Amino acid sequence: MFRETHVRTLAKAISWRVLGTVATITLVYAYTRRFVPSLAIGGLEFTSKIALYWFHERVWDRLHFGKEGVRPAVLWFTGLSGSGKSTLSRWVADRMRQAGMRVEELDGDVIRDIFPNTGFTRADRDAHIRRVGYLASKLEQNGVFVVASFVSPYEESRQFVRKQCKNFVEIYVSTPLAVCETRDVKGLYARARSGAIKNFTGVDDPYEPPSNPELVIDTTSIPIEQAGGRVFDLIRQRTRRI
Amino acid sequence: MFRETHVRTLAKAISWRVLGTVATITLVYAYTRRFVPSLAIGGLEFTSKIALYWFHERVWDRLHFGKEGVRPAVLWFTGLSGSGKSTLSRWVADRMRQAGMRVEELDGDVIRDIFPNTGFTRADRDAHIRRVGYLASKLEQNGVFVVASFVSPYEESRQFVRKQCKNFVEIYVSTPLAVCETRDVKGLYARARSGAIKNFTGVDDPYEPPSNPELVIDTTSIPIEQAGGRVFDLIRQRTRRI
Repeated sequence: MFRETHVRTLAKAISWRVLGTVATITLVYAYTRRFVPSLAIGGLEFTSKIALYWFHERVWDRLHFGKEGVRPAVLWFTGLSGSGKSTLSRWVADRMRQAGMRVEELDGDVIRDIFPNTGFTRADRDAHIRRVGYLASKLEQNGVFVVASFVSPYEESRQFVRKQCKNFVEIYVSTPLAVCETRDVKGLYARARSGAIKNFTGVDDPYEPPSNPELVIDTTSIPIEQAGGRVFDLIRQRTRRI
Repeated sequence: MFRETHVRTLAKAISWRVLGTVATITLVYAYTRRFVPSLAIGGLEFTSKIALYWFHERVWDRLHFGKEGVRPAVLWFTGLSGSGKSTLSRWVADRMRQAGMRVEELDGDVIRDIFPNTGFTRADRDAHIRRVGYLASKLEQNGVFVVASFVSPYEESRQFVRKQCKNFVEIYVSTPLAVCETRDVKGLYARARSGAIKNFTGVDDPYEPPSNPELVIDTTSIPIEQAGGRVFDLIRQRTRRI
């Protein structure tokens, strides 16, 4: 929800006045062919109309008529640990902000810090994704774009989230397990293989690939700008004004 | 996030033009004392400047400069079952919407339907309120007013939510237990007394009154308009532009 500051109104009044007064002087001169009266009328108009324009803008700022909500979307990045989904989602979110969109990023690791007692069993993971989905849908309903990055391995939980949202865009980051395991940035695969972590997706817990994602991206060998660009193009398509 | 529709821009161009052209005609007449040229210049200006104004508005709609986010708030209604907090919060939310605010209502019963496996033990209740608080804070961060109505009996959980939010307004609906139990709209107190419901706040689970609420309202004998009016006045005070 935005309101105009008084500085914005003044800046508009001045920029309009320059434009409007040049037009008026031209008009009066074209009609009268007298240069001095044209300039004099322009001068009077310039000062008096800034005040009038100001007043006119302040009244319009109170009216909601013709202000159209932008249709947001929930971008859901799903994929294995190490698939590159967080790097990709962060790149896309930054690009969206640059384009003036209001974006909330939801990331698995951050949200788990807030609810530390959420475990990694199937029931716990499912409840977790449902809660995040509910949060995402509430943000979407209020005009906010959501960029969510979660392993979210179960088709059923993702379908639940899809149903909650109005404009759900599922991006399956399909980088193969072998590649993810080679990257192993946080050393999680090594710990899962040694048994130090239980229920680790891809090792001793299944990943169910999306049955009908809006986009599939394998980050094995394409640069981030290309992968991100494909996501961004899709968003622009899907978020035309209602 | 709002954008101007083309209809709004056109309406503004016309309303401004009427105002502006009347001023121009007056000006030209005051300077030249000739009526016909004044009208003729007014006529030319009227048509040409609508197009110019349109163009000027469309350019400004692209600029974020001077668009100021409204500072929202999280209104947290806490109190016993039957205290009147939901009736009050609904009244306030409606009033806020009428005043043009973007409002999301969060209600205990609705949210429990979405997470049916949340129980009523102290740990479950606490986790539940923390999750709702996180949701509320994310909405607030994105410019949405939140009106939350939850028994939320524990001071610690409410303090957690307060810390998450920027502009937290705690409204303690302090209607005494005896009054709430007499009302017993849903028959819950009767079932709690008979032992059919366990961990019921006020019967076999404690309610810890807020230590420092922004507002205390006892709905025993005041009409809804008066109670709601007090809350609404407080919101207006607390949500002045940043």
